Amino acid sequence: MNWYLQSGKDSDIVTSTRIRFRRNLQGFKFNLKNNTEIEKLKNKIKENTYAIGYGLKYIELKDIDDITKMSLVEKNLVSAEYILKNELGAILINDEENICITVNDEDHLNIQVFNSGLDLENTLNFAIEIDKKIEETFGYSTNKKYGYLTSLPTNCGTGLKASVKVHLPALEKTKNIQKVFYTINNFGVNIDGAYGENTKEVGDIYQISNKRTLGVSENDIIENLKIVTEKLIEQERNARKFLAKDSIDLEDIVYRSYGILKYSRKISFEEAHKMISNVKLGTDLGLLPELTDSKVQKLILYTKPANMQKSLGEQYEILERDIKRAEVIKNIMNEK
Amino acid sequence: MNWYLQSGKDSDIVTSTRIRFRRNLQGFKFNLKNNTEIEKLKNKIKENTYAIGYGLKYIELKDIDDITKMSLVEKNLVSAEYILKNELGAILINDEENICITVNDEDHLNIQVFNSGLDLENTLNFAIEIDKKIEETFGYSTNKKYGYLTSLPTNCGTGLKASVKVHLPALEKTKNIQKVFYTINNFGVNIDGAYGENTKEVGDIYQISNKRTLGVSENDIIENLKIVTEKLIEQERNARKFLAKDSIDLEDIVYRSYGILKYSRKISFEEAHKMISNVKLGTDLGLLPELTDSKVQKLILYTKPANMQKSLGEQYEILERDIKRAEVIKNIMNEK
Repeated sequence: MNWYLQSGKDSDIVTSTRIRFRRNLQGFKFNLKNNTEIEKLKNKIKENTYAIGYGLKYIELKDIDDITKMSLVEKNLVSAEYILKNELGAILINDEENICITVNDEDHLNIQVFNSGLDLENTLNFAIEIDKKIEETFGYSTNKKYGYLTSLPTNCGTGLKASVKVHLPALEKTKNIQKVFYTINNFGVNIDGAYGENTKEVGDIYQISNKRTLGVSENDIIENLKIVTEKLIEQERNARKFLAKDSIDLEDIVYRSYGILKYSRKISFEEAHKMISNVKLGTDLGLLPELTDSKVQKLILYTKPANMQKSLGEQYEILERDIKRAEVIKNIMNEK
Repeated sequence: MNWYLQSGKDSDIVTSTRIRFRRNLQGFKFNLKNNTEIEKLKNKIKENTYAIGYGLKYIELKDIDDITKMSLVEKNLVSAEYILKNELGAILINDEENICITVNDEDHLNIQVFNSGLDLENTLNFAIEIDKKIEETFGYSTNKKYGYLTSLPTNCGTGLKASVKVHLPALEKTKNIQKVFYTINNFGVNIDGAYGENTKEVGDIYQISNKRTLGVSENDIIENLKIVTEKLIEQERNARKFLAKDSIDLEDIVYRSYGILKYSRKISFEEAHKMISNVKLGTDLGLLPELTDSKVQKLILYTKPANMQKSLGEQYEILERDIKRAEVIKNIMNEK
């Protein structure tokens, strides 16, 4: 089962952890625009993919159909900007999809490692292991004073972006979320909507990531992010306890959402994700034993347009999308 | 099973038929206000109740508790005005509750006979039979020119009010209902919200009744009401066919309503009746085979405050009412 359908530590609140390293290879200019040079870079990476190991496969973006491209965006494995606009790009990805490396984005390589739940240390260690292997293979652009060099100066140093996705429905429902965000904003982290950075918040899922990459160690970055995340977990758990006091109101929201997901014959993405957020809160509180974590993760992922189409394995009109979404939801909920 | 939990002819649209005769006894003044005279009238009726037959029992309003009083109002067997304000009143009622005669309302007797579905002829014939029996027992105030005399001149003549309750969700959803009402208004009928006359419309149920009582025969009155009702049935069926064309939208409304009724943990009267109206439309269209007509009738009746309390057989706070309503609904839906 793919990592994004599994549950991990604290996954009642933290849905996933990501570690990303921006790296640039020796012997190539930063931010390549020249086609010949881009092809040269890609060939070098392609030839060495097997040597890197980890079951990684080299795939050119031009060989990926649009639906698959969008399904990768929806899984948060790549940014929409990169995959849709970069015709000469390529990715290295393994079957489990917990490693996804993009080629020739802002930087030559964007090494990403994912895990379910809150697991910053292990994910970082695994990412460092892969990073070392790639460094041995190609050699990186580094500088004694700054560390790893990147296309944009703001990313250099560690080149590390560590992030977690958190599900905060109770802070949202108790209207405490802005206050909490205001507070943690002082701790050197960014807060973004779930679907990439700077997008609107859907289904009460937010991404928390480090701001600084330069002048701090990898361990300090993830330690700080961990402290902030644990603070958030504590706040969200308190809010859930508060809501559970007047439990009939909470149960009503959870079960109604369950009923709508189960019985609607057409449902928009926005409504589905609002209902799924409520239902996820219900499973996390033990109110819906019939709904496993894996089913909830499937509901989150397979209701997104491209993954929906891939899971249905058929073409359909945009007008039918809300109808198909209701079908997909019913199928997932009725799975044995 | 009581008549109001059964289904009858055209009961996909007509939920019930009622025939009412206003009658006044010989030897008593109209519109009695004097307590001694009222007691005299009641004693005469009480003494003769067994002789009238039909399993009727004589019950003084002062011997009925408030919840039972309100439950009779919710079943539309008596008006709230009569039962709550008339301390010296009494009713004759049978176990099936398809006959309910009020004593000393505007008129000495208000003879009412009920049936499920559209059944004007049989209900009228049965009411006439009872009426004759009572006339033999007491003798009525009549006049050769006007017929039966009543407290208010507008009710004299036949003293007959024939009415049907119709469920018109499709005309409502297609926004044709005002147009249809405007048209049938010319055919000598009144249109009222479901819960007594001049109340707001809840759950898309309306009452259609004759306007005139004087100068027309009983048969003409019900014949005209029948024609209007059949016209309404035709219009509602056409609207349902129209909605069924875009069946996914209709199914979505029906099944979502089913899901909300089944899973909500608290629900207001207004919301419940909106959802029940949609679900009733679903059963009438064969979309919800698991929900019998009888269950729908129970949902309509036992979600009303007083019948809810009677069906639960326990006291509860007004604040708990929406929670209890959700419980009652779940119990009815889960009945084998």
